[in-house]
Amino acid sequence: MQVGFLGTGRMGKAMAANLLRAGHRVRAWDKSPAALGELKAAGAEIAAGAAETVSGDALISMLPNDQALHEVFIAGDLLRHARPAMVSVNMGTVSLDCVDELVAAHKARNISYVAATVFGRPDVAAAAKLSIMAAGDAAAIDRVQPLFDAMGQRTSRVGLEPRHANIAKIAGNLMVACAIEAIGEAAALLRKYRMSAPDVLDVIITSLFNVPVYQGYGRAITQQQYVPPGFDLVLGMKDVGLALKAGEQANVPLPFASVLRDAFLDAMANGDTDKDWAAIARVAARKAGLQDND
Amino acid sequence: MQVGFLGTGRMGKAMAANLLRAGHRVRAWDKSPAALGELKAAGAEIAAGAAETVSGDALISMLPNDQALHEVFIAGDLLRHARPAMVSVNMGTVSLDCVDELVAAHKARNISYVAATVFGRPDVAAAAKLSIMAAGDAAAIDRVQPLFDAMGQRTSRVGLEPRHANIAKIAGNLMVACAIEAIGEAAALLRKYRMSAPDVLDVIITSLFNVPVYQGYGRAITQQQYVPPGFDLVLGMKDVGLALKAGEQANVPLPFASVLRDAFLDAMANGDTDKDWAAIARVAARKAGLQDND
Amino acid sequence: MQVGFLGTGRMGKAMAANLLRAGHRVRAWDKSPAALGELKAAGAEIAAGAAETVSGDALISMLPNDQALHEVFIAGDLLRHARPAMVSVNMGTVSLDCVDELVAAHKARNISYVAATVFGRPDVAAAAKLSIMAAGDAAAIDRVQPLFDAMGQRTSRVGLEPRHANIAKIAGNLMVACAIEAIGEAAALLRKYRMSAPDVLDVIITSLFNVPVYQGYGRAITQQQYVPPGFDLVLGMKDVGLALKAGEQANVPLPFASVLRDAFLDAMANGDTDKDWAAIARVAARKAGLQDND
Amino acid sequence: MQVGFLGTGRMGKAMAANLLRAGHRVRAWDKSPAALGELKAAGAEIAAGAAETVSGDALISMLPNDQALHEVFIAGDLLRHARPAMVSVNMGTVSLDCVDELVAAHKARNISYVAATVFGRPDVAAAAKLSIMAAGDAAAIDRVQPLFDAMGQRTSRVGLEPRHANIAKIAGNLMVACAIEAIGEAAALLRKYRMSAPDVLDVIITSLFNVPVYQGYGRAITQQQYVPPGFDLVLGMKDVGLALKAGEQANVPLPFASVLRDAFLDAMANGDTDKDWAAIARVAARKAGLQDND
Repeated sequence: MQVGFLGTGRMGKAMAANLLRAGHRVRAWDKSPAALGELKAAGAEIAAGAAETVSGDALISMLPNDQALHEVFIAGDLLRHARPAMVSVNMGTVSLDCVDELVAAHKARNISYVAATVFGRPDVAAAAKLSIMAAGDAAAIDRVQPLFDAMGQRTSRVGLEPRHANIAKIAGNLMVACAIEAIGEAAALLRKYRMSAPDVLDVIITSLFNVPVYQGYGRAITQQQYVPPGFDLVLGMKDVGLALKAGEQANVPLPFASVLRDAFLDAMANGDTDKDWAAIARVAARKAGLQDND
Repeated sequence: MQVGFLGTGRMGKAMAANLLRAGHRVRAWDKSPAALGELKAAGAEIAAGAAETVSGDALISMLPNDQALHEVFIAGDLLRHARPAMVSVNMGTVSLDCVDELVAAHKARNISYVAATVFGRPDVAAAAKLSIMAAGDAAAIDRVQPLFDAMGQRTSRVGLEPRHANIAKIAGNLMVACAIEAIGEAAALLRKYRMSAPDVLDVIITSLFNVPVYQGYGRAITQQQYVPPGFDLVLGMKDVGLALKAGEQANVPLPFASVLRDAFLDAMANGDTDKDWAAIARVAARKAGLQDND
Repeated sequence: MQVGFLGTGRMGKAMAANLLRAGHRVRAWDKSPAALGELKAAGAEIAAGAAETVSGDALISMLPNDQALHEVFIAGDLLRHARPAMVSVNMGTVSLDCVDELVAAHKARNISYVAATVFGRPDVAAAAKLSIMAAGDAAAIDRVQPLFDAMGQRTSRVGLEPRHANIAKIAGNLMVACAIEAIGEAAALLRKYRMSAPDVLDVIITSLFNVPVYQGYGRAITQQQYVPPGFDLVLGMKDVGLALKAGEQANVPLPFASVLRDAFLDAMANGDTDKDWAAIARVAARKAGLQDND
Repeated sequence: MQVGFLGTGRMGKAMAANLLRAGHRVRAWDKSPAALGELKAAGAEIAAGAAETVSGDALISMLPNDQALHEVFIAGDLLRHARPAMVSVNMGTVSLDCVDELVAAHKARNISYVAATVFGRPDVAAAAKLSIMAAGDAAAIDRVQPLFDAMGQRTSRVGLEPRHANIAKIAGNLMVACAIEAIGEAAALLRKYRMSAPDVLDVIITSLFNVPVYQGYGRAITQQQYVPPGFDLVLGMKDVGLALKAGEQANVPLPFASVLRDAFLDAMANGDTDKDWAAIARVAARKAGLQDND
């Protein structure tokens, strides 16, 4: 298939490369030209502007946040140029307000819109092992299924409204953030009793929680290794904010998310803005009066 | 080895059976005679009273709570009768105050005391796959290591003070309770958006959280299956209380544990005392105004 | 002075009437004509549209929320018609984003902008006893001070940036919401012990908390009297949301505000949207398993 | 009346002095002899031991905590010596477990027991303006009413079970702690926006919250004046703990109390154990990244 690709950061670059590997033709664009070099070497065509990405069978967006999507799709009126038969697939994590705005913009131009969120970090994306959650019109999803097959290990259809894919992603991200906070509180408790947090958590993350999420964050937290960030703390705050907003719009109290929000703000107020989001464990430690070398 | 065994509930029964299977001799006692029948059939000797369990090489206690231990060891002055060379191993989940009381009682009678807590539900215990965390005097642990080998898949030594084994267990249990609450909040969010919580959580618990703890509780919560309890809600409340108490004694705020405490109290106030502890997910749902069939 | 007045709900009506009483000339407008009848009888001129309110010495806005201000000032481009020497005074409780938007709009038209928030319910407004917190350019505040004198018992200048008046108001409202939740938790505790919550709280609100805020909400809560609302629950949610937003923009965790947010969502999810904001006490009671007649 | 008086700390001393002033005869005892000098000068008889305080018409206990009461009444078996017609009045703030223990001890010796908790700091006690909440047998309360009249400005009867007086006190103290946290969060918000917290809070505590509790703590917090403590932070933690315990025993979630508990632990972990309990406001400030001079 002929695929436009918007947003070639760490995730997008890996995903686009897998499309190329599966034999699709990719025309990519990113605000930052730096990100496009590798893809060009891998066989992608580089678009001169976003407008050049909408003439194929599908357009995949992997932009970083609501604002970037708004700029390209709404302010830039991207769909004005789009090929009518194109399916537009947004795979980024965005707010429900942004989804609603995109749905309306696509409807106005009569372009099919599919939301397809993913679980998996850049290394998972590179291995084409993403878990993809797609939502929207079934026929439109059918048409881009070959692209999902090239990027992920399976695609689950989670609803008929595009926003359903975003809510599913928001729910999963919230659960990851909760796991981080839980590890952080456990580690603070262990350290305060002068026990070896790495040793004890190693038992826990190789038995009860024998899964990469816990192992990765468990080790980061007990080794106090938060730079360079694998996932930025400010993006973690964004994700928790999306969960709280989604909860607010449907009257769903989320007390763990509220605790997380306060932890992220505390981290940012105390100088950890540029660290990995696992650095909220530093907040739990500071509340317990722990020093870094305790 | 000749082993006394106190407390043959679901966990204790499975652990004692594995000792027998490994060739050890077991003399068991429980307040409730009903629990002893199966063990007798499996080759255990049944003690007429707790006092008859302390004449061997080791005594293993798997009693349900602080009070049961206090009754047997302190009020009943069990150690008065103990063989001096015996190693006493407490494998239950108890408070730090109870540990301190037991340590003092053993010291007074000059009996070795080892704390060895475990991760694993009754089916894991039956398969001799428990993760054991031992703490106390290294030589004493060495002597009972063959028993641990018969009951668990590995033994980690987590500290030189017996209470360290309990803190490790408390930390792990807190993390499990946090996982349950996180699933419950996610499920409430999904249901309120009229999405299929079972389908979406299935994606999450077979990708990000592909581990039995999440799969078991994830399915229980999305299917609203809380009876019969696998782990009683009141025991969950007890465990969270132990974490809060341990935190309090060392000045460690544990905000997730505080949220959990409120959720357990809410569940008990609203009629779910006899359910599985995963029923705290009903609290999250009720706060969101969800009915059982939503 | 010649004063335009936008927004004549319960608060605005009382404030405008006091301006008339003090000898000022008032030209009032409201989206809902019904609200204007009383003011006309009291001597106000009724404007045919918002545009007719900006030709005097001052314009006072007492509109209900961000959206109403946006419609009138931004979408309606109200200031296009304004007399250059006019001072525009916004006395409503709005978000900081809205303040920023208004500040920019006034600057673009070179109109003086003063923010002046108030403490006091409609009866306090009617008695001209409001506490007014003004912020902005000192000379501009000087010019409208006679209006403040007519509406309030004192004016405090809380900062040079208009948003400071809003932050002060947000802080005060948050404290009121906290008082309500505190009363609600205390009442739930007393009721659960089958004590007379009205009698005990009466001791507390006539000794420690001998002030109308506690007395009013204390009685509403112990008598479970939440309709008709004196202050709508959804406006309470809005105010807590403003506090959380202000906290977020400056990295200030506000854990009580987070608890309040969850309580408001719970109340709305469970059918209390149309009640007084003191009905968050019903959430505390429900969590404790209390029925209305307990 | 002839009155024994146990515990002559800051509160007890002032209360006993008022009994003397009203013409009652007082025989006082305290663990620390230092506290007794002033009372002797005021006309009190000083007991050689606690046992000498139980031969009169009434015994008033104003001991600092559960442990002190347990030592004197239970371990010391004080009531063994008591005059049968004596009424024993406990006016301290204790746990419900302690109340139950005292009730049982009095019943065993057939001595009347009245619980009578108070609101008011030492200066209020000195002015004989305490608010007294009495609970227990009505006839017994009638007999000691003259003593209450000498110490307080009014006595409210809050229940027939002695514990009811303690629950009422616990509820009131919880509300005071909530007010402190609310002020602390508001102050952190104001300071982070570089506004004058003293000036703005002054508006709030002379309008909405025009009552000594808010004025005292409001000024302490905005002036960061936490030593010497008026009420020790550890006693505040004790009071919040009593509220949480009372809530737990009756299945009442108290989310504000949970937040407070975490704040007190944070304060103690970070070096503020010896300060006034208003120093939990330092926790709110630290979470916001504020330095003392911000």
